[in-house]
Amino acid sequence: MNQALEGIKVLDLTRVLAGPYCTMVLADMGAEVIKVEEPGKGDDSRHFGPYVNGESAYFMSINRNKHSVTMNLKHELAKKEFLKLVAQVDVVTENFKPGTMEKLGLGYEELKKVNPRLIYAATSGFGHSGPYSKRPAYDGVVQAMGGIMSITGQKGGKPTRVGPSVGDIMAGLFTAIGILGAIRYRDQHGVGQKVDVAMLDCQVAVLENAISRYFVNGVSPKPEGNRHASIVPFEPFDTHDGEIMIAVGNDNIWKSFCAQIGRPELVDHELFSTNPLRSKNYDALRPVIAEAVAQKSTAQWQEIFDANGVPNGPINTIEMVVADPQVNHREMIVEVSHPVAEKVKIPGVPIKMSETQGTVRRAAPVLGADTAEILKRMNGLTDQEIEMLFSEGAV
Amino acid sequence: MNQALEGIKVLDLTRVLAGPYCTMVLADMGAEVIKVEEPGKGDDSRHFGPYVNGESAYFMSINRNKHSVTMNLKHELAKKEFLKLVAQVDVVTENFKPGTMEKLGLGYEELKKVNPRLIYAATSGFGHSGPYSKRPAYDGVVQAMGGIMSITGQKGGKPTRVGPSVGDIMAGLFTAIGILGAIRYRDQHGVGQKVDVAMLDCQVAVLENAISRYFVNGVSPKPEGNRHASIVPFEPFDTHDGEIMIAVGNDNIWKSFCAQIGRPELVDHELFSTNPLRSKNYDALRPVIAEAVAQKSTAQWQEIFDANGVPNGPINTIEMVVADPQVNHREMIVEVSHPVAEKVKIPGVPIKMSETQGTVRRAAPVLGADTAEILKRMNGLTDQEIEMLFSEGAV
Repeated sequence: MNQALEGIKVLDLTRVLAGPYCTMVLADMGAEVIKVEEPGKGDDSRHFGPYVNGESAYFMSINRNKHSVTMNLKHELAKKEFLKLVAQVDVVTENFKPGTMEKLGLGYEELKKVNPRLIYAATSGFGHSGPYSKRPAYDGVVQAMGGIMSITGQKGGKPTRVGPSVGDIMAGLFTAIGILGAIRYRDQHGVGQKVDVAMLDCQVAVLENAISRYFVNGVSPKPEGNRHASIVPFEPFDTHDGEIMIAVGNDNIWKSFCAQIGRPELVDHELFSTNPLRSKNYDALRPVIAEAVAQKSTAQWQEIFDANGVPNGPINTIEMVVADPQVNHREMIVEVSHPVAEKVKIPGVPIKMSETQGTVRRAAPVLGADTAEILKRMNGLTDQEIEMLFSEGAV
Repeated sequence: MNQALEGIKVLDLTRVLAGPYCTMVLADMGAEVIKVEEPGKGDDSRHFGPYVNGESAYFMSINRNKHSVTMNLKHELAKKEFLKLVAQVDVVTENFKPGTMEKLGLGYEELKKVNPRLIYAATSGFGHSGPYSKRPAYDGVVQAMGGIMSITGQKGGKPTRVGPSVGDIMAGLFTAIGILGAIRYRDQHGVGQKVDVAMLDCQVAVLENAISRYFVNGVSPKPEGNRHASIVPFEPFDTHDGEIMIAVGNDNIWKSFCAQIGRPELVDHELFSTNPLRSKNYDALRPVIAEAVAQKSTAQWQEIFDANGVPNGPINTIEMVVADPQVNHREMIVEVSHPVAEKVKIPGVPIKMSETQGTVRRAAPVLGADTAEILKRMNGLTDQEIEMLFSEGAV
């Protein structure tokens, strides 16, 4: 099948998560991503456990479909080859602390001279401007500063870090969007540009109604637990053997829900007949529902609610997620063959496209697997020249 | 300034959050987004509080830069005008339950006949295929089923819903990426396609190392609280007047950190000199650090740590986020003038582009503000014809 980004070449200096997540998304859609790594060491995340036959499972899950070239960018011979690659690619990505590329003499202003059509995408903690620009950041720091922790957590409890590194991942997704927008502009007008995405900015961008609520009420929202702020019932309830999330989004669903839990008299009850009433009389309603839901198992309720149009779902563990029939039908867990780790299961491609379905075409590369091939094919080097670069420690 | 997506036209049937978030991102980059809403009622989120002069702050924050056209898509006259618009746009977006557009006779297969270059993007709870496809979903249900709740929360505590609706927002961002990939392919090859993004799939795609840890160890990860799974110290500590997130990401930072908290003897201590040792002896180390950090205020520590390269950050409330100097320097809070709500503050554009900076050009539209203008400009209707459509209840 054709790929949406066929022909797009990305020279990728990113490490760990935000940047690699961005280039994974581009690679999944068919871009040729050439990951440039430090000789002998590589991306830091190659050294994050757990390991499979010595290969990092973490690294493998977000670097599939990429090529690996080692280059010591402090070495003049490597710089020369790097610039020859810059001249041939569409995109350069990096997620260093701002200023790092300039110190190497490889800042956007320099690279632009080599390739005016280049799109240069930088993902960083705080962005390439402003008072915090040069500060180091980690996902935890950005989640703390960006406000998401202050509105996540049990009611009355402490601010809570979101499990997955959404500080990194959101920034990776926004960077991918910026790159694709810049490609469109480049295709139309012939000029490249710099895309600068800050993890902190992205956290602000995803706070959604917390920001508008604050500006209207002047009060900072707090952790609300697992309950919806304004719809009732819309939260998990304990079942006979676990929990089930129930989302009664409107009065039609309410009618069906009451019938299914054997409490049809609640439908038109003067305290509960509309959502505003249910919200107002929440404390009276919750125990009534809780008592009914506790009578059956999660699986029984799922079957009943699914058959009667009541939005619901189990609170799945990771084990349950990866075994879920819908998740598997949608090919969201895929197995790839890795030369060292052998068979590895990783998340699939979430963007389903009728003409250009993205795929996991190859496993993550072992360090430097493609150095010789890329230098030969793209820079026209001979075997002897490549050998010299290796012996000089340039690659 | 030029805009990256200038000239791209999006006919937008989406409501509430996942779809509108996607088209907001496209509109911010310069696409012309024509929001099609039900006459008299509009997007459900127009009726979500809090309100400013009767206009929903929630709606206004994610529908800036868009146009609003009302159309009753069950009315034949409206359908005819809708199809005339379909023929002229690049993208149609919707986030109905799968099958809804087909019931209206406006499914992708029909629209494609009118415009073979069309990109049709559908965002839904479970996707347009698979056993759960036709089920209704809400953010809470998808967060429960997708596993993110099972790894978010205090250590030993309950699975916890992420405050912002990341089930919707992640799907919105992946849909935007899919649309932009499809536009690139259409520009190159002349054919459109259908993009199908499921909220559940996106939740799986962002679980990152939780999936790889599960497949390697066979054990589902649990909520880990605010502490990093493998780096120490990397968590919030109580200060004299609040909390501060500290992220000692490597041994150089450790050296500086110990000096700043007045405990230089910890640097080479036999129990704490390396990260593996600090992880192993966490229970002995934490109280020592906690005692030291409790001596000063959050602001004092910030100043000290910032001056000495120790990654740190306050756990900001929303009030603190919107007042933060970096957030404001990056223009992540912007004020727009709304015809009814007057001045409204909303999040800015997180993708910074050197040639085509996206902007908030106009406030969210009041319902149907652009119906007559669009029908005139794009479909060539006369004032009289438009008046007829209004009086027929078609628009």
